[in-house]
Amino acid sequence: MSAGKIVDLNKLCIHTITTKHWSIEEAAENYSKVGVKGISVWRQYLDGRNIAGTGEMLRAHGLEIVSLVRGGFFASTSLDARNKALAANKKAIDEAAALGAPMIVLVCGADPGQPLEVSRQQIQAGIETLLPHAIESGVKLAIEPLHPMYADTRSAVNTLAQANDMAEAIDSEYVGVAADVYHIWWDPDLEQQLMRCGRNNNLFAFHICDWMSPTVDFLNDRGLMGEGCIPIRKIRGWAEAAGFRGYNEVEIFSDRLWSGDQHEFLKRIVKSYYQS
Amino acid sequence: MSAGKIVDLNKLCIHTITTKHWSIEEAAENYSKVGVKGISVWRQYLDGRNIAGTGEMLRAHGLEIVSLVRGGFFASTSLDARNKALAANKKAIDEAAALGAPMIVLVCGADPGQPLEVSRQQIQAGIETLLPHAIESGVKLAIEPLHPMYADTRSAVNTLAQANDMAEAIDSEYVGVAADVYHIWWDPDLEQQLMRCGRNNNLFAFHICDWMSPTVDFLNDRGLMGEGCIPIRKIRGWAEAAGFRGYNEVEIFSDRLWSGDQHEFLKRIVKSYYQS
Repeated sequence: MSAGKIVDLNKLCIHTITTKHWSIEEAAENYSKVGVKGISVWRQYLDGRNIAGTGEMLRAHGLEIVSLVRGGFFASTSLDARNKALAANKKAIDEAAALGAPMIVLVCGADPGQPLEVSRQQIQAGIETLLPHAIESGVKLAIEPLHPMYADTRSAVNTLAQANDMAEAIDSEYVGVAADVYHIWWDPDLEQQLMRCGRNNNLFAFHICDWMSPTVDFLNDRGLMGEGCIPIRKIRGWAEAAGFRGYNEVEIFSDRLWSGDQHEFLKRIVKSYYQS
Repeated sequence: MSAGKIVDLNKLCIHTITTKHWSIEEAAENYSKVGVKGISVWRQYLDGRNIAGTGEMLRAHGLEIVSLVRGGFFASTSLDARNKALAANKKAIDEAAALGAPMIVLVCGADPGQPLEVSRQQIQAGIETLLPHAIESGVKLAIEPLHPMYADTRSAVNTLAQANDMAEAIDSEYVGVAADVYHIWWDPDLEQQLMRCGRNNNLFAFHICDWMSPTVDFLNDRGLMGEGCIPIRKIRGWAEAAGFRGYNEVEIFSDRLWSGDQHEFLKRIVKSYYQS
């Protein structure tokens, strides 16, 4: 078996945002029908629902809950906004615990009104503040480095090296890294930083999709695996070599793919997953 | 005088693409009227002109020719395309020599159909192939690392560290680096990589503009200095600390700024330059 090759669906997880127009009940039913084994739940899909009951519903469909998406947004020039973010993150941790999600993905945030270094300090301080509540709740926190094109507002953590630095500085088994190929595929240090991440038991999550050429929208023009130029299998091989045994989480934001038939889209996800 | 602070226009250069709609004759006249001292010439502005004569015209307006923009695009899955790129780069070197430009900026290229490592090898091989002609012509080559959002097609060189690595590997006083704040502002290693670049006498050029929040177009939504979130003065201070004494080259692609009165835009460039 060659490194990174997909042989079955046992490690296929889908983020609910990927099939944006489906409720979580529809997603659960449709994912499980085609053999998807994991689900990562975006918080808006829990709105108005009994969260513990929703977790039971997902497990009853044979789905493992991989992560709750998302916490973060710790960085701001406003102390009030930072405090509100901490409160929102505590609520997210409570939701993850109620749902039975073992982990929250952190989109760490940035504020164009302050230096990146300040945002980075606020992010680390925010995570450290949350950590006791996360530990008590049994919910891990995964720092997701975001592509440098999001450094102004979405995340001041823009490389796997930075995420590794931060996770190692915080030094808790409850804090690690979510590696999304979309954000880090271009990085010349990717292989060595994945190895470092694994060596420190910090590789908590692995997200996949593809980079379209050309990309026409900063947020919502991700591709299905194989549609773009990301060497997903090679990167997965590195993650496996680094000891990662978790899910491949398909996280695609795409106005193009959201506009068509969603059952057809789900079939294409499964097909392209095998080929990825 | 604080680090990076602008006190006069002696080191202000503008790229002709910045005032896109002006011919090079109009640009020369208008730049010199407002006290701009340097000009970087995009090759399309030389179309149909006597190049040596155009160089004389620019100097007669009191403008120093800082660079010819641009060579590069070395990476391709097609051998024929790579050979054509080499021929085009030789022509660019000849044009730079005729114009009296001491340097060509290289946008190195990438091809989504092949691994980044292969593109990176082709880039280095391309520069090495060109080098004897560049030396003979007295024209330096500046490797410009491009933002990771361009890694699929425009450049497989995406960090200053990579550009430094490549310039040091080639090891010629004719090969260095062009540092554009737009492409590298997010990099946590920026200060140390600028220092390294200067220490090796490889910091050939310094380009400025700003990163808009939000940015709405992948190519043509750069901001005037001060409109966005790039800490230009801080980065310039690092470049100066690294020994850089060259021009601040204003390189702005902006559908928004191109759509208004260009004399007004030029005034805003000068004003925002002082504040940058």
